[in-house]
Amino acid sequence: MSKIAVVMGSQSDLTTLEGMIRLLKKFELDFEVKVLSAHRTPDEAAAYAKSARENGIDVIIAAAGKAAHLPGVLAAHTTLPVIGIPVKASVLDGMDALFSIVQMPTGIPVATVGINGAENAALLAIEMLAIRDEKLAGKLAEHRASMKKAMVTAQESVDRRISEL
Amino acid sequence: MSKIAVVMGSQSDLTTLEGMIRLLKKFELDFEVKVLSAHRTPDEAAAYAKSARENGIDVIIAAAGKAAHLPGVLAAHTTLPVIGIPVKASVLDGMDALFSIVQMPTGIPVATVGINGAENAALLAIEMLAIRDEKLAGKLAEHRASMKKAMVTAQESVDRRISEL
Amino acid sequence: MSKIAVVMGSQSDLTTLEGMIRLLKKFELDFEVKVLSAHRTPDEAAAYAKSARENGIDVIIAAAGKAAHLPGVLAAHTTLPVIGIPVKASVLDGMDALFSIVQMPTGIPVATVGINGAENAALLAIEMLAIRDEKLAGKLAEHRASMKKAMVTAQESVDRRISEL
Amino acid sequence: MSKIAVVMGSQSDLTTLEGMIRLLKKFELDFEVKVLSAHRTPDEAAAYAKSARENGIDVIIAAAGKAAHLPGVLAAHTTLPVIGIPVKASVLDGMDALFSIVQMPTGIPVATVGINGAENAALLAIEMLAIRDEKLAGKLAEHRASMKKAMVTAQESVDRRISEL
Amino acid sequence: MSKIAVVMGSQSDLTTLEGMIRLLKKFELDFEVKVLSAHRTPDEAAAYAKSARENGIDVIIAAAGKAAHLPGVLAAHTTLPVIGIPVKASVLDGMDALFSIVQMPTGIPVATVGINGAENAALLAIEMLAIRDEKLAGKLAEHRASMKKAMVTAQESVDRRISEL
Amino acid sequence: MSKIAVVMGSQSDLTTLEGMIRLLKKFELDFEVKVLSAHRTPDEAAAYAKSARENGIDVIIAAAGKAAHLPGVLAAHTTLPVIGIPVKASVLDGMDALFSIVQMPTGIPVATVGINGAENAALLAIEMLAIRDEKLAGKLAEHRASMKKAMVTAQESVDRRISEL
Amino acid sequence: MSKIAVVMGSQSDLTTLEGMIRLLKKFELDFEVKVLSAHRTPDEAAAYAKSARENGIDVIIAAAGKAAHLPGVLAAHTTLPVIGIPVKASVLDGMDALFSIVQMPTGIPVATVGINGAENAALLAIEMLAIRDEKLAGKLAEHRASMKKAMVTAQESVDRRISEL
Amino acid sequence: MSKIAVVMGSQSDLTTLEGMIRLLKKFELDFEVKVLSAHRTPDEAAAYAKSARENGIDVIIAAAGKAAHLPGVLAAHTTLPVIGIPVKASVLDGMDALFSIVQMPTGIPVATVGINGAENAALLAIEMLAIRDEKLAGKLAEHRASMKKAMVTAQESVDRRISEL
Repeated sequence: MSKIAVVMGSQSDLTTLEGMIRLLKKFELDFEVKVLSAHRTPDEAAAYAKSARENGIDVIIAAAGKAAHLPGVLAAHTTLPVIGIPVKASVLDGMDALFSIVQMPTGIPVATVGINGAENAALLAIEMLAIRDEKLAGKLAEHRASMKKAMVTAQESVDRRISEL
Repeated sequence: MSKIAVVMGSQSDLTTLEGMIRLLKKFELDFEVKVLSAHRTPDEAAAYAKSARENGIDVIIAAAGKAAHLPGVLAAHTTLPVIGIPVKASVLDGMDALFSIVQMPTGIPVATVGINGAENAALLAIEMLAIRDEKLAGKLAEHRASMKKAMVTAQESVDRRISEL
Repeated sequence: MSKIAVVMGSQSDLTTLEGMIRLLKKFELDFEVKVLSAHRTPDEAAAYAKSARENGIDVIIAAAGKAAHLPGVLAAHTTLPVIGIPVKASVLDGMDALFSIVQMPTGIPVATVGINGAENAALLAIEMLAIRDEKLAGKLAEHRASMKKAMVTAQESVDRRISEL
Repeated sequence: MSKIAVVMGSQSDLTTLEGMIRLLKKFELDFEVKVLSAHRTPDEAAAYAKSARENGIDVIIAAAGKAAHLPGVLAAHTTLPVIGIPVKASVLDGMDALFSIVQMPTGIPVATVGINGAENAALLAIEMLAIRDEKLAGKLAEHRASMKKAMVTAQESVDRRISEL
Repeated sequence: MSKIAVVMGSQSDLTTLEGMIRLLKKFELDFEVKVLSAHRTPDEAAAYAKSARENGIDVIIAAAGKAAHLPGVLAAHTTLPVIGIPVKASVLDGMDALFSIVQMPTGIPVATVGINGAENAALLAIEMLAIRDEKLAGKLAEHRASMKKAMVTAQESVDRRISEL
Repeated sequence: MSKIAVVMGSQSDLTTLEGMIRLLKKFELDFEVKVLSAHRTPDEAAAYAKSARENGIDVIIAAAGKAAHLPGVLAAHTTLPVIGIPVKASVLDGMDALFSIVQMPTGIPVATVGINGAENAALLAIEMLAIRDEKLAGKLAEHRASMKKAMVTAQESVDRRISEL
Repeated sequence: MSKIAVVMGSQSDLTTLEGMIRLLKKFELDFEVKVLSAHRTPDEAAAYAKSARENGIDVIIAAAGKAAHLPGVLAAHTTLPVIGIPVKASVLDGMDALFSIVQMPTGIPVATVGINGAENAALLAIEMLAIRDEKLAGKLAEHRASMKKAMVTAQESVDRRISEL
Repeated sequence: MSKIAVVMGSQSDLTTLEGMIRLLKKFELDFEVKVLSAHRTPDEAAAYAKSARENGIDVIIAAAGKAAHLPGVLAAHTTLPVIGIPVKASVLDGMDALFSIVQMPTGIPVATVGINGAENAALLAIEMLAIRDEKLAGKLAEHRASMKKAMVTAQESVDRRISEL
């Protein structure tokens, strides 16, 4: 059974991650959520990443804002894929977190998604697990199909609004 | 056997990708390299992504510059993980490509690496494949160990230079 | 009879486009509005652009936010002029959409207007249609004249406010 | 017969425009090239734009760098479509010109292409003229086809290089 | 008697300028306020600048947002000093206006103040007029002294708040 | 006994600094708070910095927004360490203040913390004082420990919320 | 007789200023050039600004790079108009200097010109002096006329090059 | 005796640091230089920071480029002051490193200097050590005096060049 680790640098990041948690539940995936800081609990973060593979974790998703070192620090301690979510903080619209996560030095990659892009982080993790898991790949295909179906409803709603203008 | 697809939007992106190709060869991975443009050959790009899974591709790496739509366009046609490499062009230092790749809408993720970060894209693809492949995970661990070893040589070299100053 | 296509990447873009719709109605132009996503309905978007010319469309206006691929993807499938509107999303003030739309590779242009500049997109489309349509050119001239007239009222209003300070 | 006006704010912009001039010649279009500055010859620029339609001009392409007012100033004096090319100067990588051109106020649009995107400006102008000109539309389709064909050669070239690495 | 012209590109800029108007009144300066757009009333704007010197204007202050061409366009038609105020609009925090105003080409300067810096524009105009006007220079010195005095009150207020924390 | 000087460029910066003042009180440090402007009271600011060392000040913390010259100006008049806090103002999200503080010329450093990072400025000052002060170093270690402990509570709170989703 | 002060923060700024010096000589203006640093010689800079008016200086032009405090620091000590030239340094393309100069707090304006815009700084100073000096205003008009004349030559040169393409 | 640690994330950073090393030698300070990566040798970096205080280190200077986590990661493991130098890499002009270093979360400060500002990092470290070290404070004062003296030579050199123009 696959397992995803969701790590956030601060409790305040949870708001950004709630949609992702719901998505992981909807996909019936096994996951665990940890609050670990690259700066306030660096040893715990390192230990968590180091033992992740042997603890059955397959993919790590890490969210952080500002000088967002968490995804890169976790990636330094494991060869599991690490997905980084830059979180928008009170200034700079998440640009600082984006640069701190995506511009990793050669050798230690972090798979970066868009600013506050938590749901895409989950989908990316699922895509990784679905490489060799046909059932999961099927669920992803259904999810895409449902997004496509929602476009039909959107068209109807837009048509109504246009006629009112 | 795992297989990686490397797709570039333009022949001129090849320079940025050569280190990555060498890395894929060093890891003895099966891969293919395609020149496909989201704008000049959109149907071919779409068809390639659509049939990638059934053609045995496990991960797609896509590199593009400027309004770098290629990774996102490929991701729209497959549920395989797509890794995007923003390529620096003659202006804006790759910021345009970074935004065009990383800021994907909810539902269609692209795993973005740093600007011109081709080697990290390869390593990320290998990490994905190594989730369930212990031999590959072992090779990744060796790669990390060799990077660490290189730091010792770097220290010696720095020490010599410092003593000269 | 000329016809304009308005395409939006998401229903949420409609708010930004309402003034434009009103303007198109005021100019008594034939137009249709479609919700088509470069990522969630890529085949439909491609098919729409491919058949646009034969379906009597003269100009396509496309609005999208974040990694705004929609205008470029439509442009890849037609030689009709495509006008792109970068839509401001919750972060980055529309800069990501601007770069994703305006920085198109050589060969596939997108006529980009300002961030959230929907009314200017409509006026630009009308200008294109008015190249050989004297009646439409006349309406554009009237529109300009009305804007100029509004400046007189603005001056009076400013004069009143200044005298109060 | 259609006619395109190419206006540059400074002689130094010509280098950026040479590819475009060759493209216009290849498409056998009638065009004229003017050096007109929004700041050094403002009256001439205004007069040129004002009389452009009656002088048989159908589309105006204007290139300028830094505080690139030229496209907007021309657009203020005509209802012909004006295409703006932001030109990269010695600092800021063309961002100043991009903002000065694309962020036009409501009412006076400028169709903006990418930084130094002169060839795309020409193609956009041709697309506008081709709305009702089947022969020109045919030439545009051929141009697209030739770009597509070039991708085949690019693939071969890339394949050779990959095998050498 | 000296006279200052205040020109705004749009009535909506008035909010940003009210503090400046009060300051000009406090300094008992002769001034006039005009709503003139570089794009919607370009001829009026040009005519105004051309005749400004002979109409007794000594300094022009111009405020505009987005692709803020107004200050530069006025400067193109006069050798009077033109002060430009970049006004923050709904996106980009005034960066577009700042670049459009400050990055003028060689030969036509605009004296740019900070984003929304209307009061500083007025003070700068007064400083220009005070070069040879001792009485006005005296008033400026008083204004500086009053700012300095306000710092004493600020210190007391801060002291009180600190003691409460 | 060590003493820290806190200098703010404007009374309005106090809101940003209140958490820092509380922290300094919690660490039972001797400190004084001054309102001094590099522009409105430049002589007072210079005099303050010049006599700071002989007046028993060990570290200066200076907060300012916009063209934030205060920290650099103080640093020019003393060889005491000066810590600069870029304060976010109404536009540009503090980027102007960050650049104005951090990009000091060679020879006159300012120790810059993050935008609005007042508490970190205080902690940095304390770290400087704790280099040779074991008791203070002990208090810093306790502060770190309490931050770490707060992570445990955060984990519990996150666990509860996750189970609700 | 009018007199202009040119102040540079570092000898390395001279390269950027040489065209300006030539322009001041061409206009036969009285000027003096000083190397004064806001950080390395703050007292000298303050003293210079304080006594500038009584020493016969009418306008101060100050050039500086990076955290470019010099123009603002001079402005803090005089009510003469101060013109600031942001100088491009080895990183950030002059954006740091632009923000440090233009974003002055309310009360102390600096008339900012474009990055490396030294000639415009001189012309702006001359415009200030020409407010009440008809002879100087005449020279400015001649300078504008010569720029306009240069456009004719530019047109001829462009025409020749176009015919060759 | 005081001791400074200089840590660089990569051997390639040494070029940027050579001036600093010479400065530390000139000040006759005890220092050691280490190559330690937050990502390639994370355990060594953590161990180094953890034992720094007991090993007699007083201040740590850390230089890194791109997603420059090194200074923050060291700071997470010690309460010694950590000074961060953002190093310019091949893209983004050091902005990524600046954000990754300066935007640290509350609780773990990094004293950030300008991009490539290695000499200022050394001077800042010396200022920290000089808080209670009069001899070192004297050397700093001499260093300032020598910078001031260099301005006199600069003035003479500028005067000569001006007379030639």
